[in-house]
Amino acid sequence: MANFIPLNDRVLIKRVSSEEVTQGGIYIPDTAKEKPLEGEVVAIGSGKIMENGSVKPMLVKPGDRVLFAKYTETEIKLNGESFLLIREDDLLGIIL
Amino acid sequence: MANFIPLNDRVLIKRVSSEEVTQGGIYIPDTAKEKPLEGEVVAIGSGKIMENGSVKPMLVKPGDRVLFAKYTETEIKLNGESFLLIREDDLLGIIL
Amino acid sequence: MANFIPLNDRVLIKRVSSEEVTQGGIYIPDTAKEKPLEGEVVAIGSGKIMENGSVKPMLVKPGDRVLFAKYTETEIKLNGESFLLIREDDLLGIIL
Amino acid sequence: MANFIPLNDRVLIKRVSSEEVTQGGIYIPDTAKEKPLEGEVVAIGSGKIMENGSVKPMLVKPGDRVLFAKYTETEIKLNGESFLLIREDDLLGIIL
Amino acid sequence: MANFIPLNDRVLIKRVSSEEVTQGGIYIPDTAKEKPLEGEVVAIGSGKIMENGSVKPMLVKPGDRVLFAKYTETEIKLNGESFLLIREDDLLGIIL
Amino acid sequence: MANFIPLNDRVLIKRVSSEEVTQGGIYIPDTAKEKPLEGEVVAIGSGKIMENGSVKPMLVKPGDRVLFAKYTETEIKLNGESFLLIREDDLLGIIL
Amino acid sequence: MANFIPLNDRVLIKRVSSEEVTQGGIYIPDTAKEKPLEGEVVAIGSGKIMENGSVKPMLVKPGDRVLFAKYTETEIKLNGESFLLIREDDLLGIIL
Repeated sequence: MANFIPLNDRVLIKRVSSEEVTQGGIYIPDTAKEKPLEGEVVAIGSGKIMENGSVKPMLVKPGDRVLFAKYTETEIKLNGESFLLIREDDLLGIIL
Repeated sequence: MANFIPLNDRVLIKRVSSEEVTQGGIYIPDTAKEKPLEGEVVAIGSGKIMENGSVKPMLVKPGDRVLFAKYTETEIKLNGESFLLIREDDLLGIIL
Repeated sequence: MANFIPLNDRVLIKRVSSEEVTQGGIYIPDTAKEKPLEGEVVAIGSGKIMENGSVKPMLVKPGDRVLFAKYTETEIKLNGESFLLIREDDLLGIIL
Repeated sequence: MANFIPLNDRVLIKRVSSEEVTQGGIYIPDTAKEKPLEGEVVAIGSGKIMENGSVKPMLVKPGDRVLFAKYTETEIKLNGESFLLIREDDLLGIIL
Repeated sequence: MANFIPLNDRVLIKRVSSEEVTQGGIYIPDTAKEKPLEGEVVAIGSGKIMENGSVKPMLVKPGDRVLFAKYTETEIKLNGESFLLIREDDLLGIIL
Repeated sequence: MANFIPLNDRVLIKRVSSEEVTQGGIYIPDTAKEKPLEGEVVAIGSGKIMENGSVKPMLVKPGDRVLFAKYTETEIKLNGESFLLIREDDLLGIIL
Repeated sequence: MANFIPLNDRVLIKRVSSEEVTQGGIYIPDTAKEKPLEGEVVAIGSGKIMENGSVKPMLVKPGDRVLFAKYTETEIKLNGESFLLIREDDLLGIIL
């Protein structure tokens, strides 16, 4: 879909709009200092290289619904469509 | 119960309300600078990846009663229910 | 005694009151910038996991009398009794 | 083309002008705090040396179209032509 | 002598008073920004645990005369007698 | 030429004057925040020792024309002649 | 000569006075922000212990003429004579 290969442990994410989210999905309380956001994984990097040279495999895959901490994303547009780039360690978890 | 898989060394926790806690359980003194809080582990990540590529196994499991340092939690709601996400290193210990 | 399992390299300590301490035991001078305190080890964690995945064994055991640097402790109460949680690296030594 | 060998994990990049980019390519929104920029890889270093002495292979190669975070580049001129030097970890990804 | 076992890479030291020191021994100039001090090693820890799990053996032993950088010591009293606790890396060297 | 052996990963460099540089060589734009400078490698250290004890071999050799980031150099004079000392990681690349 | 064993990667140095230095030796320009100084190695430590437990061998030996960055030295006096203690990584190089 997106012609983009994230590097290292970065994840390309399509943000899910808040309207969708509150409909029976996840809801972020207003009082939270740093509100987690939701998105869908579009593409993943090859994984972080550890200091011993081994590759840490990615824990998420395209199609996964993920939560991520706000302010950790970098917004880009590919062919006019908005995406986010986030390092995997800033992803909080996968919504089943 | 919660359809959520925490990533890396994160732990999904259901906070135990203070009322329950003070009844014969743990009690947090008012004078403490940083009051530990209590909760029940709901789901755990696969564990922190060490620099040599090995996985540090999680020390807690779903159902464990844990104490954690305040301000280390990230609050989320799943299907309208509140949960906390905490990195395992911020958990102080398990209450038997 | 205390139904609590400290996590990682944390140590559960029962503080020894100053009155006991000064009677032929350790005495902390008033001029010290950061006064060490004394306590008895009640429970220990399983040890710090090193970056190569090995476990650093704990150097103290339940029953040990230890000195620790002030402001490194987290105070908790278990069944109405006060305890301290301290990372082992903040323990200065064992009093024989 | 450029008679220059980047050292370690550095990448020599020829910036692609904004005019080209917006024509059916990538578009950077004005509201982004730190706008990613686009360029073409001209030359690459031999790769970062990890703490265990192994070499982390480079993930990009000459000819790749890459996105990079702004303010991570060092501008140089070789024979009157402008180039940028960027550490590979500051490259966000490859545009296909 | 002192019933105390330092933990990790800590060294228990009995400070040598300045009067003794200046008599044919070491002399600390007044102009030095951070004056080194002298003491005698009384007890040593088991050594620092390195990240690969191995133990770095202690370089000093009880009885050694050592120089240490000021402000790196923690003062304690054992049975009414003053001692200092210093991490081995803050010891500058051994006086023969 | 210079009777000097740099230690660890340091490189001894003879700066090339700006006049030479702009004549068909490299040109540094005035607008650059941190202008890279050019020099010739005169002598190299034995290489950085990695945490696993292995030696990272030097990537430059005497005679190489190199670019380096400004403010990373230490100026010394040997027999009245000026030289610069720079850690290899601060060298940007080799000009062919 | 000096009855002193430096610890870890420390080097005991006898400073060479500026008068000697400027006579056909090294000369430090007044405009340098941080002037390197010259000295002779008198004694060396056993070497830095790396994280994998191996010892990094010392690169200098007693008798070597060395340059070191200012403000990295600790001044001590042994039997009334002034010496400097410097970590080997702060030595810039050896003058032949």
